[in-house]
Amino acid sequence: MNRPALAAIASLTLLLAIPAQGKRRAAPPDLEKVAAQLLGEALVSGEPWEELIFLCDRIGHRLSGSDALQRAVTWGAEQMRQDGLSVQIEPVQVPRWIRGAESLQMSAPIERPLPMLGLGMSVGTPPEGIEAEVLVVDDFDHLAELGEAVAGRIVLFDVPFTTYGETVAYRVGGPSRAAELGAAAVLVRSVSPESLSTPHTGTLVYDEAAPQIPAAAITLEDAAAIRRLSERGVPVHLRLQMEARLDGEATSANVVGELLGRESPEEIVVVACHLDSWDVGQGAQDDGAGCVAAMEVGRLLAALPVAPRRTVRVVLYTNEENGLGGGRAYAEAHADERHVAALEMDTGAGQPLGFRVDVRSGGDPEANAAEAERIVGLLAEWAPLLDPVGAGAFHPSWSGADIGPLVAQGALGLGLDQDVSGYWPIHHTPADTVDKIDPQILNRNTAALAVMIWLLAESPDLPEVQQLAEQ
Amino acid sequence: MNRPALAAIASLTLLLAIPAQGKRRAAPPDLEKVAAQLLGEALVSGEPWEELIFLCDRIGHRLSGSDALQRAVTWGAEQMRQDGLSVQIEPVQVPRWIRGAESLQMSAPIERPLPMLGLGMSVGTPPEGIEAEVLVVDDFDHLAELGEAVAGRIVLFDVPFTTYGETVAYRVGGPSRAAELGAAAVLVRSVSPESLSTPHTGTLVYDEAAPQIPAAAITLEDAAAIRRLSERGVPVHLRLQMEARLDGEATSANVVGELLGRESPEEIVVVACHLDSWDVGQGAQDDGAGCVAAMEVGRLLAALPVAPRRTVRVVLYTNEENGLGGGRAYAEAHADERHVAALEMDTGAGQPLGFRVDVRSGGDPEANAAEAERIVGLLAEWAPLLDPVGAGAFHPSWSGADIGPLVAQGALGLGLDQDVSGYWPIHHTPADTVDKIDPQILNRNTAALAVMIWLLAESPDLPEVQQLAEQ
Repeated sequence: MNRPALAAIASLTLLLAIPAQGKRRAAPPDLEKVAAQLLGEALVSGEPWEELIFLCDRIGHRLSGSDALQRAVTWGAEQMRQDGLSVQIEPVQVPRWIRGAESLQMSAPIERPLPMLGLGMSVGTPPEGIEAEVLVVDDFDHLAELGEAVAGRIVLFDVPFTTYGETVAYRVGGPSRAAELGAAAVLVRSVSPESLSTPHTGTLVYDEAAPQIPAAAITLEDAAAIRRLSERGVPVHLRLQMEARLDGEATSANVVGELLGRESPEEIVVVACHLDSWDVGQGAQDDGAGCVAAMEVGRLLAALPVAPRRTVRVVLYTNEENGLGGGRAYAEAHADERHVAALEMDTGAGQPLGFRVDVRSGGDPEANAAEAERIVGLLAEWAPLLDPVGAGAFHPSWSGADIGPLVAQGALGLGLDQDVSGYWPIHHTPADTVDKIDPQILNRNTAALAVMIWLLAESPDLPEVQQLAEQ
Repeated sequence: MNRPALAAIASLTLLLAIPAQGKRRAAPPDLEKVAAQLLGEALVSGEPWEELIFLCDRIGHRLSGSDALQRAVTWGAEQMRQDGLSVQIEPVQVPRWIRGAESLQMSAPIERPLPMLGLGMSVGTPPEGIEAEVLVVDDFDHLAELGEAVAGRIVLFDVPFTTYGETVAYRVGGPSRAAELGAAAVLVRSVSPESLSTPHTGTLVYDEAAPQIPAAAITLEDAAAIRRLSERGVPVHLRLQMEARLDGEATSANVVGELLGRESPEEIVVVACHLDSWDVGQGAQDDGAGCVAAMEVGRLLAALPVAPRRTVRVVLYTNEENGLGGGRAYAEAHADERHVAALEMDTGAGQPLGFRVDVRSGGDPEANAAEAERIVGLLAEWAPLLDPVGAGAFHPSWSGADIGPLVAQGALGLGLDQDVSGYWPIHHTPADTVDKIDPQILNRNTAALAVMIWLLAESPDLPEVQQLAEQ
């Protein structure tokens, strides 16, 4: 539908609605009129901003297993109850990784400390640390070429940022790849396009077959300095000390706020974020912003005169950062329910650009991609309701980490697409703080989520994913 | 002279120079031809870049009184001797300020550490620290309004960056202003337009009349967080611990490399930088870049077939950051000499834009300013030789900190004007590192200095400052 037509219908609906107010409960809600109302309400709301400030300033960062995450769970549940949702706190076992004291010291050619952050889930060093000469590695091919030269060395993966997906492979998989060749420890150039002496943490994943060696991120500045020295034939010796350890598991929780569907309660639409964060900064954009936006969607829909046709669940996931335990636990606990769609916001609080459309209902990637393309075509009809906040573009892509298991079960996966230019520089750092967020742009994100969730929950013609063959 | 005319003269000079090569020593150098040659040589040189890398990576940051600064002095002297200059190491007494361990911890509303850097020359706290509620202060007027409410509090000057000169007043003078009202300690929002959780150090200056209280810089992020809490009526309690102390004096040195003038050796032209830095980062742009550029000017001029008409001195000053002892000591030691001009590069390594022209030969600011305007008019003739690197614009303004005493003695003061947009974000931080510098742009700065110093040292029609009345 084009915009003038939409506007005409909205005006007409408004006129027709006036005498119908007495029978509000009986009249089915007007899909597009309510979408427009939600859009406007989201844009003027002060709620998400104040909630974000509370979450970030009064609770702070929220690593899995921390007391702060528990406080955030309690707070999120209480907020959603106050907003009129039916709330469940669903326990999830999560790893309790402890950073402990950590430091990195250059001992040659000069003595100086290097800012660093141990990678999440890393093992620690012996108490006296690991001191070794650094070996600068360009990429995995270079590592393989170096072969035996890797043994006993501290490997520095000095890989410039291209895309997050491409560059993060060295943080996630680099430690085990280097360990296979006998490296003593791994450092990664922080996964970021820019730096003001800013290390970026994030999880590693150890291969089962490889020895577990400690790993940490250093700044872009120090990666460059070590490369300069190395290129000039000056040996660089570092001493890494990390108390990091995995201290078993803790009981955390997903927070699930529900609005039972009016006509098809068995069809569930999820709007998702993750409440946990790394143990630095405030977790403001990763993913506090996503949570207050998702909660606002719940608040706005709960305030409608009648519930949407389908059930809407706001899911504040736990343990996205280092385990994805929340995503798995929800999908397992609710495997017998029918999730028609799941939408996640987890790439910061930049300008919304549209939605990534993710289909994994079958075993054939090409068939999934073709189905995603078909859905993109159907969703395009809703673009006029999302274009006002810049979110009317759709394209097939990965949706979100927490909702991945639901998408694998056949749900339509949607990821809010955002301008991430301001996101990667602060991602997983002490600089992920409220001040980087523009409350007006946060509201545009909320508006995009609210309109999309409303349409998914209410539309009689839901773009449903065709369940494809297992293959 | 316009550019085509200049080019024509340069070509003609080149032709005439060919048969004259045998008599090179006797022939006076062609002012504009040699300027053009120096420009080209500076632009293709690899020396400043490699010297900067050595200084930053192999010596590191260089606080007054540190061993590293002593190594830099020795290195700078040796480099200039190798380049053919006559070098003097001139002792200067400098303060030995020791940062020691330092930390800032929020105790309410939540427990968390805050990144910080103690301000240079600050006193320390008692060993147990200073714990107090924070008082957020907008500016000095606001401080005065608060009056008695300041007593016993940790004052946070949360002043947004406008210009460096305007904003730095709170770092320099804020501690004593708050101490006069009984504040326990002072925090300043770092003097910077942007941040990735990056505190900026820098010196404070205690008023003699006020009690000396400890002072530190916090990040823009935490200043914003404390303001948000404060605006919402949430008391913020912090504990500041600093071992900072002034440990008497140390003997440092200015390094003076000289090329004795060919015809008027008693007329001295100075090209200046400061070799000391803060005790964080690498002091790459503040002011390593200025030093390697000044040293390159010395190298290029020393390599000319004949020395310039006037004496040129490359002065690597000490103790610019916390005392200006080097600038004072040089001016005092050489007070009986005639410095006709002094040029300083100390605003980073961004694109050169021109020169600030500074006259303080008299006691009347308006007369000085008028004289500076007159000099600007005379210097404009040289613009065609500086425009190729973007440095052909002149305007009256402050020149540089180290050369200030020479300018006060009547020398023409010149400051290399540079694009500082990339400078303030890294200034006095761990992020002042080599990687932020583009070697091509560094060379453009060097070229601008080389051409200007050559013209000042060789021109028969030097724009000389008229010595004005004391008033």
